Amino acid sequence: MSPLPGGSPIQTYLDALHRRLAPLREGLVAAYIPELAHADPAWFGIAIATVDGHLYSVGDTAQCATIQSISKPFVYGMALAEQGVERVLAKVGVEPTGEAFNSISLEPDTGRPLNPMINAGAIAVSAMIAGTDAADGERRIMAMFERYTGRTMAVDERVYASEARTGHRNRALAHLMRNFDIITGDPEPGLDLYFRQCSVLVDCRDLAIMGATLANDGVNPLTGARALAAPDVARVLAVMTSCGMYDFSGGWIYRVGMPAKSGVAGGIIAVLPGQMGIAVFSPPLDSRGNSVRGIRVCEEISADFALHLFHTPRATAASIIRSRSDGTELRSSRRRRRSERTRLRARGARVRLYELQGELNLGATESLVHDVLRERAAFEILILDLTRVVGLDQAAARLLSELAHDLQSHERTLLLPGGHHQPPLVHALAEVSSETGSPGPLRFTERDQALEWAEDQLLGRALQDPVTETPLIENDLCETLDANARDQLITIAERLDCVAGQVVYHPGDPADALFLIARGQFQIQSTASARIPLRCATLGPGLVFGDLPLATGRSRDHTVIALNDRAACWRIPYRAIAPELKVQLLASLATRLAERLTEGSGAGEPTPDGGDFEG
Amino acid sequence: MSPLPGGSPIQTYLDALHRRLAPLREGLVAAYIPELAHADPAWFGIAIATVDGHLYSVGDTAQCATIQSISKPFVYGMALAEQGVERVLAKVGVEPTGEAFNSISLEPDTGRPLNPMINAGAIAVSAMIAGTDAADGERRIMAMFERYTGRTMAVDERVYASEARTGHRNRALAHLMRNFDIITGDPEPGLDLYFRQCSVLVDCRDLAIMGATLANDGVNPLTGARALAAPDVARVLAVMTSCGMYDFSGGWIYRVGMPAKSGVAGGIIAVLPGQMGIAVFSPPLDSRGNSVRGIRVCEEISADFALHLFHTPRATAASIIRSRSDGTELRSSRRRRRSERTRLRARGARVRLYELQGELNLGATESLVHDVLRERAAFEILILDLTRVVGLDQAAARLLSELAHDLQSHERTLLLPGGHHQPPLVHALAEVSSETGSPGPLRFTERDQALEWAEDQLLGRALQDPVTETPLIENDLCETLDANARDQLITIAERLDCVAGQVVYHPGDPADALFLIARGQFQIQSTASARIPLRCATLGPGLVFGDLPLATGRSRDHTVIALNDRAACWRIPYRAIAPELKVQLLASLATRLAERLTEGSGAGEPTPDGGDFEG
Repeated sequence: MSPLPGGSPIQTYLDALHRRLAPLREGLVAAYIPELAHADPAWFGIAIATVDGHLYSVGDTAQCATIQSISKPFVYGMALAEQGVERVLAKVGVEPTGEAFNSISLEPDTGRPLNPMINAGAIAVSAMIAGTDAADGERRIMAMFERYTGRTMAVDERVYASEARTGHRNRALAHLMRNFDIITGDPEPGLDLYFRQCSVLVDCRDLAIMGATLANDGVNPLTGARALAAPDVARVLAVMTSCGMYDFSGGWIYRVGMPAKSGVAGGIIAVLPGQMGIAVFSPPLDSRGNSVRGIRVCEEISADFALHLFHTPRATAASIIRSRSDGTELRSSRRRRRSERTRLRARGARVRLYELQGELNLGATESLVHDVLRERAAFEILILDLTRVVGLDQAAARLLSELAHDLQSHERTLLLPGGHHQPPLVHALAEVSSETGSPGPLRFTERDQALEWAEDQLLGRALQDPVTETPLIENDLCETLDANARDQLITIAERLDCVAGQVVYHPGDPADALFLIARGQFQIQSTASARIPLRCATLGPGLVFGDLPLATGRSRDHTVIALNDRAACWRIPYRAIAPELKVQLLASLATRLAERLTEGSGAGEPTPDGGDFEG
Repeated sequence: MSPLPGGSPIQTYLDALHRRLAPLREGLVAAYIPELAHADPAWFGIAIATVDGHLYSVGDTAQCATIQSISKPFVYGMALAEQGVERVLAKVGVEPTGEAFNSISLEPDTGRPLNPMINAGAIAVSAMIAGTDAADGERRIMAMFERYTGRTMAVDERVYASEARTGHRNRALAHLMRNFDIITGDPEPGLDLYFRQCSVLVDCRDLAIMGATLANDGVNPLTGARALAAPDVARVLAVMTSCGMYDFSGGWIYRVGMPAKSGVAGGIIAVLPGQMGIAVFSPPLDSRGNSVRGIRVCEEISADFALHLFHTPRATAASIIRSRSDGTELRSSRRRRRSERTRLRARGARVRLYELQGELNLGATESLVHDVLRERAAFEILILDLTRVVGLDQAAARLLSELAHDLQSHERTLLLPGGHHQPPLVHALAEVSSETGSPGPLRFTERDQALEWAEDQLLGRALQDPVTETPLIENDLCETLDANARDQLITIAERLDCVAGQVVYHPGDPADALFLIARGQFQIQSTASARIPLRCATLGPGLVFGDLPLATGRSRDHTVIALNDRAACWRIPYRAIAPELKVQLLASLATRLAERLTEGSGAGEPTPDGGDFEG
């Protein structure tokens, strides 16, 4: 449990809420189970547990009491997990009754209890779990609760004995269901298990953590243990939504708008999916059996933070598209020759890039796809950059995979950098076969790689070309030099032939030369800001590197390696550079640096990049 | 209505779904209203309308039929708007009944119908709307429907006459409620209005748009007209959730998990909040009065796209923090002198910057606040950059405003650039008073401005200092020059005194000098990429500008203006620069450019920036 930071606004809020509602004196402590009548009506605790495992609490949150009906959704979830949905639905429905918790509420013809939150339904569920070995059923139930709370649980034997002795109405319900064969065999073991599950001792913090576990899709946020599979969590929350608060369920969802469950010992548990569990403990109950302070606390929290299920604004479609751009504005970190840059500017509109953000759901993705399809005739390559997307659900994954199919059939290429982080998308795209010559949508994990590939397509040449050689005189650098300077450069150049992986220089090496690439590719890597080597930039024939120290006088701070066998460059030793050539080299260097700064200010983000000049 | 793009995966999906379910022959066309029995059991349409106003449809979506019970939630919403929640709740409850749509279902003691989705409740609601002038009530109801559909609506007089003639049970319900004074005065006008509202003609596309209007928080996505206030939309959706599908409501929320409403003419409307409305029309009904194909369609869409209310993953807390950094890594676009940069690196940890993204809700913001408060002792200024946040709800706004209070009371400053785009935050922060000397959290609209202010605080000097002069010899540029070069620079420097707003040069001007700032501030503005002048960089004493053309030979492409009266600089004409000084100036220029590129590769995004060198 992380320590609570001072001044937490949630703690401050809960403290004030507790102070304000503690004087509330309405309601009566439950007396129908004699042992419950001993509860102190002044007990009042509120606890909130978040899906990040933060716990906030105020008041009597360490006071234990029996869980009572709050056990019902958890045991129901366990039955779903053990027996499967259809077998459970055959025995117990999921319809609200509009009647009290201890009503008969069996379907007239089948005897099936209307839902598992009323006593009849819960007893039928416990009977399913008891099966032929009630003791084993109890062990499984206790283990289940322990996964939710993360601690050892115990039964209050006095309350259990009291309830078992006086539970005539529940016994009648069990026998009535035996009559309809909803319960088969002796109804006593299931009934007894029901009394025992209701007598499990919990405190308010336990309840909050149990709620947070449901909010966290079934995984206990403190222990990391899975208590229930996600699809069953959705079912449990649905039943809590329609039937959780007895015959106040409709009013609860109208006013508070969260799945919840109450118990006659005075507990209420409410779940804010994806965010937190809220628990209140205060024994005095209203006429429907719900804790009076518990309802007030949840009503106020819901109103103060606008937490109603249908209040919370969702991602709007427009908000997921952060930017639209094309290849005329964007560049990969692959350094291109001046002539190539000119061609990319001319043809760049054939590459479209959408930078997406936030959460992709059905509505937002539909809007995106709508937008894309209208432009389909105008592009060859579509890059949807998902690296800033924080969530992508099954519906979004499905639409994107169908978009991939559609674009493939129209001879367009879809690339989804960042998509490999989104499991639903990886799953959905597994079916999109990669055709020869076209990469699959997830081939590139980073936008920069996708852009580089797209640029190569536009330039109409293969990614790797280690054979063709660019004469020194055609190097970009030479374009900016006058005839005398060029002649001098040729005179002092020394040939350097490399094999793949060969290091040209390391960080810390003294800088004594610049390099003009003749053939193959060289990569500049930085280790300055990260432990692992970072891809900085890939440079090909006609480009220059290692000339920055000519200006700074510093030693190397990058690694440069050759990427291909037969890669080659010309080495220009600094000491051989005459003053007039130096002026021209420095002017060229400054011009290229300034161009890169200007390019970097476009729609894109700079890639970690030491540049083509770095030493 | 936007044209449908070819190959839309949603259209393709709906086409296939319609093909697959059209052969389904179960169910019977409603016969209890004689006129309804004329419906063709083969009619089958599906329509989806998105909150962006896109419409997808397949099958008989232009076939009109009477709206029947689907009118109930819309008329209920209208009653909430006209009479207020409490008056409506006094007459009609919000509890599910577990019984059929035409059940009596009145509270035994008060005669209050349990909810407005059963006939009794809907009749009571219509009676409230009829009031003393039923004709006016009908006009208001028709106008209300027209806000939802965006077109003129009409009543099917034959169905109305048939229903009015044979509606004995509904007439009995009305008189029973008259007996309990739930309906006061003559029950006939309210009952008649109910029959008329049920006989309004709609097609499947209308229903989808009505659903999309609810999904869009009450605003019709096609017309932009508001049909219902957002808080009442939440109430209508809550009642649809608990009671919308007659005595299948619990099963519906369990299996489909969306607020919905069905009608006996064969329509079903389902709402995916924030995303879309789904409508199905197919007359054959099951034993509970719900369209058989309608239920199947919604079950399949929900399963195929995982749309269940409790399935959809929400923003997790961790996902909203895009990056954490501090002033040692980040820089505003305000150019700083070398000595200032050294001081910022040393003291920068006193400024913290969190870059946030996605949607801020209670859970995510709690996690953020938790994180921040643990670090509170370590910073003086906290910048939460909200410019990438796509949504921020009331709960998040409340926590952030309480964080602002807490930090203020601990003498820390909270800045929320981008927060001015989030109405709930603007509202919540209106109460956080700005103390003297400390800016309010929303004072800066852009992160760069907030960072600049924070840097100024760290440097311990006022933003504006037009008096102190930095000698030429102390200009950053001189640090990198040798003694001879410095002497030459001083010899050729010409003094330039400015007044506030004075333009030093314009884009297109020939570049013939560089400038060393002596006093006051100068701003470099770009108009290249935008119509409106863009703040590029602010430069103060000791910095240099206008030296890039020394390398490129190009003319000016920025505007530079003086920001203060008494601002001053030294002008260094290019033509007076000797070759050895030129080498050193170019080396200095290249070094500064390279430093800026390296700085730009940190956690931050580059600001639109022509730099301190630009010509």
